Amino acid sequence: MLHITLPDGSVRQVEPGTTGYDLAASISEGLARNALAVKVNGEIRDLHRPLTEDAALEILTWNDAGGKSTYWHSSAHLMAEALEALYPGVKLAIGPAVENGFYYDVDLGEGRTISSDDFPAIEKKMLELAKNKSRYERREVPKAEAIAYFTEKQDPYKLELIDGLEDGQITFYTQGNFTDLCRGPHIPDTSTIKAAKLMNVAGAYWRGDEKNKQLTRLYGITFPKAKELTEYLERLEEAKRRDHRKLGKELELFAFSERVGAGLPLWLPKGTALRERLEQFLRKAQVKAGYQPVVTPHIGSKELYVTSGHYEKYGADSFQPIKTPNPGEEFFLKPMNCPHHCEIYRTKPRSYRDLPVRLAEFGTVYRYEQSGELHGLTRVRGFTQDDAHIFCRPDQVKEEFQKVIDLVLYVFKALGFVDFTAQISLRDPDNKAKYIGTDENWALAESAIQEATAEKGLTTVTELGEAAFYGPKLDFMVRDALGRRWQLGTIQVDYNLPERFDLEYVAPDNTKQRPVMIHRAPFGSLERFVAVLIEHTAGNFPLWLSPEQFTVLPISDKFADYAYEVKARLEAADLRGTVDARDERIGRKIRDAELAKTPYLLVVGEKEAQDGLISVRRHGEGDIGSMPIDSFIQSVNTQVAEAMG
Amino acid sequence: MLHITLPDGSVRQVEPGTTGYDLAASISEGLARNALAVKVNGEIRDLHRPLTEDAALEILTWNDAGGKSTYWHSSAHLMAEALEALYPGVKLAIGPAVENGFYYDVDLGEGRTISSDDFPAIEKKMLELAKNKSRYERREVPKAEAIAYFTEKQDPYKLELIDGLEDGQITFYTQGNFTDLCRGPHIPDTSTIKAAKLMNVAGAYWRGDEKNKQLTRLYGITFPKAKELTEYLERLEEAKRRDHRKLGKELELFAFSERVGAGLPLWLPKGTALRERLEQFLRKAQVKAGYQPVVTPHIGSKELYVTSGHYEKYGADSFQPIKTPNPGEEFFLKPMNCPHHCEIYRTKPRSYRDLPVRLAEFGTVYRYEQSGELHGLTRVRGFTQDDAHIFCRPDQVKEEFQKVIDLVLYVFKALGFVDFTAQISLRDPDNKAKYIGTDENWALAESAIQEATAEKGLTTVTELGEAAFYGPKLDFMVRDALGRRWQLGTIQVDYNLPERFDLEYVAPDNTKQRPVMIHRAPFGSLERFVAVLIEHTAGNFPLWLSPEQFTVLPISDKFADYAYEVKARLEAADLRGTVDARDERIGRKIRDAELAKTPYLLVVGEKEAQDGLISVRRHGEGDIGSMPIDSFIQSVNTQVAEAMG
Repeated sequence: MLHITLPDGSVRQVEPGTTGYDLAASISEGLARNALAVKVNGEIRDLHRPLTEDAALEILTWNDAGGKSTYWHSSAHLMAEALEALYPGVKLAIGPAVENGFYYDVDLGEGRTISSDDFPAIEKKMLELAKNKSRYERREVPKAEAIAYFTEKQDPYKLELIDGLEDGQITFYTQGNFTDLCRGPHIPDTSTIKAAKLMNVAGAYWRGDEKNKQLTRLYGITFPKAKELTEYLERLEEAKRRDHRKLGKELELFAFSERVGAGLPLWLPKGTALRERLEQFLRKAQVKAGYQPVVTPHIGSKELYVTSGHYEKYGADSFQPIKTPNPGEEFFLKPMNCPHHCEIYRTKPRSYRDLPVRLAEFGTVYRYEQSGELHGLTRVRGFTQDDAHIFCRPDQVKEEFQKVIDLVLYVFKALGFVDFTAQISLRDPDNKAKYIGTDENWALAESAIQEATAEKGLTTVTELGEAAFYGPKLDFMVRDALGRRWQLGTIQVDYNLPERFDLEYVAPDNTKQRPVMIHRAPFGSLERFVAVLIEHTAGNFPLWLSPEQFTVLPISDKFADYAYEVKARLEAADLRGTVDARDERIGRKIRDAELAKTPYLLVVGEKEAQDGLISVRRHGEGDIGSMPIDSFIQSVNTQVAEAMG
Repeated sequence: MLHITLPDGSVRQVEPGTTGYDLAASISEGLARNALAVKVNGEIRDLHRPLTEDAALEILTWNDAGGKSTYWHSSAHLMAEALEALYPGVKLAIGPAVENGFYYDVDLGEGRTISSDDFPAIEKKMLELAKNKSRYERREVPKAEAIAYFTEKQDPYKLELIDGLEDGQITFYTQGNFTDLCRGPHIPDTSTIKAAKLMNVAGAYWRGDEKNKQLTRLYGITFPKAKELTEYLERLEEAKRRDHRKLGKELELFAFSERVGAGLPLWLPKGTALRERLEQFLRKAQVKAGYQPVVTPHIGSKELYVTSGHYEKYGADSFQPIKTPNPGEEFFLKPMNCPHHCEIYRTKPRSYRDLPVRLAEFGTVYRYEQSGELHGLTRVRGFTQDDAHIFCRPDQVKEEFQKVIDLVLYVFKALGFVDFTAQISLRDPDNKAKYIGTDENWALAESAIQEATAEKGLTTVTELGEAAFYGPKLDFMVRDALGRRWQLGTIQVDYNLPERFDLEYVAPDNTKQRPVMIHRAPFGSLERFVAVLIEHTAGNFPLWLSPEQFTVLPISDKFADYAYEVKARLEAADLRGTVDARDERIGRKIRDAELAKTPYLLVVGEKEAQDGLISVRRHGEGDIGSMPIDSFIQSVNTQVAEAMG
C-alpha cells in the first residue's frame, strides 16, 4: 500500500496504480469533476497517471495556479489542432502556457499569414474540437519513433527539438487528431475548455535568435466558463483605463522626457502634491514610532561599496562609476541607502541603552534597467525608497518586527488596501552553511518573525530557503481593486552589513557586541506605490491624499470674488483646491472637474453668495445639496480623520 | 584747471598738481587726518600723488576696503623693514595685502627659522619703526638702476621679478631704511600703524611652484588703534567657538565620512530636524506665494546638457559622465535644476493666461570641488538648493521680482538676519554685444529690478558689467552677528535657457512667444545657509527652528512617569523635545542640556508632579519660574508666531 499525504496533513493508504482522479473522487464528486491535474511531491502530473510511490499529493483545479497553467498548456495543443485543420501543412515550434493564457509559435508556410480577422474562425474551430471531449493521452516513445513521426510530418522544428533530447525521455501527447512532442502534464480531456479567445499575433524568432527564421506567435486564452472570458476581457479593458501611465498623463501627475532620460520620472506639480502628502503621512507616523529622519547624499565613494560588498556585484549591466579629476577616485550612484546609514550609526559610540536606533530616509536610489524593461513608474531607473534601518539588539528583533508590522498595516489601511498577504522567507534548513550569522541569531530572528506575524493575525505563507544569505524576511503583497497582486513593503533582517561595517554597541557587561540591522520599506518605493495606487483607485485618490480636494466653480464672472473667498476659507482650514475662473459655461466646468477626478465640486452663484453657502457635488455621486462652508469643512475633516484611523 | 568729481556728484575745480590730501583738507580737517589713499577714476593711488587730469575722485579711509588694503600693504613693508633689522641678510620675495591683513614671503637664509615665539620681537620692532613716522616715498627708476640695487642687496627674488618687468614701469617705495620694488600705492606714512600682530607662519613655494625653493610666509595684521586689534582677536576667538564645523559636531547636526566621500555631508537626526524645519518653513511660504513644488531626478542625459549648453563647459575638473551598458549613452550628476524644470515647462502647451508658472524644488545638485577647497558645509560637493524657476511674460518681471524680494525679506526676518544689502548686477552698457536677449527685454528687466528694489526700500549697490551674459541679477548679502558678510540668496533673470529649450507660450494674439525665466534661491543652499545660521546664532537657533525645543528633566526616577506625561502633552501641541531619564544628578542633567543649547529645560519633581506644573529654565537666561504646562505652550506659541511674522 502507498501512503498519500494530503494538504490538510491527513494520510490515505491506497493501492499502487491508484490515480489522482481516484483520490479526488474518494474525497468528493465535485472535486473529481473540477480536478485538472495533481501535484505529486511538488511536481505537477496528469490527473490519470497512476501513483507508484508514497507521496505528498494535492489535487489541482482551476483555482490553483498550477491547475490554470496545465489547462492553458492543453489549450495550446487544442489551438494547434485547430490550426492544422484550418492551415494544412502548418509547422509547429513550441507552445507553452504563460501568465494569462498560452501561445504557440508556428510556421504557416510561404505566403500565408494570420491577422486578427482570422481569429474568430480559429476560436470557433477550437470550441468545435473541444466538444469532442478528446482525452490528452500520454505515451513514451523511443527516439527513433519520434524522429520517424515528425520526419513524415515534415516538421523541422520538432525534429530539432528531438535532436536535443536524450533517448528514453521522449513523451508524446495526443488529443483527437493531433499529436505533439510534449513533456506534459495535461488536463484529462478537452471538454472543460468552454471559451476561447485569440488575443494577439506577433513575430518571434525560432529559439529567440534573430539569425533564425521568424515564426508567427499566436497568443490565446481559454476558460471553463464563457462568463469568465467576458469578465476577463472587461478586466483587461478596465486595466487599460486604469493604466497608471495613461492616468498619470491625463491627471498631470508625472511625465518622462527623452532629454532627461528614459526611466527617470519628472514629478509634475499635482503628482508632487500627492507624493509629498504620502511622505508627510509616513514621516509623521514614523516619527511617532520613534524613527529619526536623516539625509544622505546620492553618491558614495568606491570604498563605501567595497566595505558593503556591493562593489564586487557592480557589473557591465549597471550605471558605471563616476570618475573625478583625482586619479583613482570613483563614486557610484547609490543603489540603496543602507551603507550610508551604517556610516551614520558609526558617527558615535552606542550603548545597549541607545538601541534601537531607527534611521529613516526618503532616499532616492538609482539602478540601471535595460530600456526595454522600463515601464511607467513600476520599473524605473531612479526611485525613492521609504527606507529605514533599525539597529537593535538580538533580543529586540521581535518587538521591532511587531512595530514595523503595525506601521505597514496602518499605511495599508489609510490607503484602502484591505486585501493583502505576507510571505515569510526562512533559510533552507538543509543548507545552513550558505548563510551568514550564528545559528542562535537565526533561530531568534526566524521565530521572532513567525511569532510577530502570528500575534498580529497576519495571513502568511512560509517559504523555506527563500531567505537572503544575510537574514530572513517578510514581504507584503496587496491585491488591488482588479484582483491583481503587487509586492509592496518588505522587512528584512540583516546580519551581514553590521559585520562588514564593524558596527558595535557596548553591552551591559561592557563587552562590544554587534547590533542586528533591519531594513524596511512599507511602500517599497514611492514610484511603485503611486503607480499601484493610481491603478487601484483609478485615479480617485483617498480624499486626504487628493492633489486637489475641491474646485470652486463660479456660475459666472460675477461670482468669481465669492469663489475666491470660499477658496481662501477652505485653505485656511488646510484644504487644497482651486477656482475655475474660466469664462466657460458651468456645464463645461463641471465636466472638466469630473474628468480631473476632483473629489468635491463647489458650485457658487447668486443664492450661494448671498447666503454664504456652497452647492456641493461629490465626484462619482453627483449633487449632495447646498451647505454652509463650515459644515463642508467639518464633513471633510471627519472623513479624513476616519480614513487615517 | 582740472575738474574733480566727488562721490556726492559735486565737482571741484583745482590746479593741476593738487593732491588727494589737499582735496581732503579742503573738505574737512578730520578727513585729511584719516585719509589713507585716493581712488582716481577707479584706480587707488598715493594720497600725496599730484593730480594731472580731470577725474572722479574718492578719499579712502580705514572704513573703505581700498583704504584697509593699502594700509595693510604698507604694513607688509613695515614688517619687512623690521625683519631686515632683526634678521640681517633676509631675502624678500613678495608681500601683498590679503582679506584680513597681509603676508610677506621671505628667505631667512640657511639654518634660520621663525616660530611664533619670535613674533613678539618682530611686532615690537614694527611699532618702534612705525613711531618714526617714516613717509612711504614713491620713485620711478630705470630698469638698470633697479637691477643694480638688488644685485648689491643680493636678492635673487626681486631680481627675477624685475626681469619680468618692462623698462619704464619700475617703481620703488622707500620708508625709513627700507626700499622695496613695488607698484604701490601706499599710505602717507607709518604713524597710523598703532597695533601689529603676527598671526601665523607657514611654508610657501616661490611663485607657488613646488619645484622652487620653499620660503617662509609670515602673516600679520595691523590696526590704527590698539583697541581694534583686541576686538579683532576677540572676534577671531568667537568665530572659532562658533565655527559651524565644531558646533555641527558638538550639537550632532551633521558629519562627514571618508568612506562616503569628502564634501558629502551626512545629516544626522538633529541636523535633519533643523533642515526639514527650514524646508517646511520655506515650502509653506512658497506655496502661499503661488509656487508649485516638483521633484526631478539627480541625473540627466548628455542630451539635456547639450541642449542647455552646460555640456561644453564640463571639463576634466568636473564629476565625469556616468556611462551605461548602452554604448554612447551618458548621464551626468545634475549641477543645477534648471534644465529639468525647463523640461517640465515643456510637458504641455502654455497660454499667456497660465503665466507665471513657478516651479520649486529642494533639488540636490553635485559639483566637484578639489578636496583642498572643501570646508564644512560652506564648500561641499553635494548640496540642496532651495531652487525655483519662474517662467513669466516680460511684462511680469517686475512684479515677480517684488514677490521674490518679499519672500527673501520674510525668510531673513524669520531667521534673525536684520543686517543685509543687495547688489544689482547690470550689463556693461559699452559692450552690449556680448549679452543674449533683446535690448527691449534687457531695458525692461533692468529697470524692473531697479524699481522693485527701490520700491521695497532695499539698500543696494549697482555694478555695471557684472550681469551674466544671459541676464541681470540681484544678490543678497547678510551680515552675521560677528560682522562677517555672507552671500546668500540670489535672483537671476535668464533669456538664454528659454531660447535653448525653445520654450513658448501662446500670446493673446495667438502668436508663440518666449517666456522669461527667473532663477531664485533665498537660502542659496540649505548647507551653506545652515552653516551661516550656526555661526550667526552660535548654535542657539530660533525657538521655532530648534531641533529640540525642550528637555524634560525629572529630579529623580520617581518623577520619570510625570516627565513623559509632560513630553506627551507638549508633543500633542506640536512642540519637539525629549526626556532626560538618565540616572544622573539634576545638576549634571541641567549642565548637559545647557551644553546642547536646548532652549527650554523643564525640571519636574514632587511639587511639579503634584500640581501639574513645570519649572522652566530658559537657555542663557536661567530659571524663569514654575508654571502650568498650558501657560508654557501658550508662551512658546506666541514667541514662534511673533518670529514668523
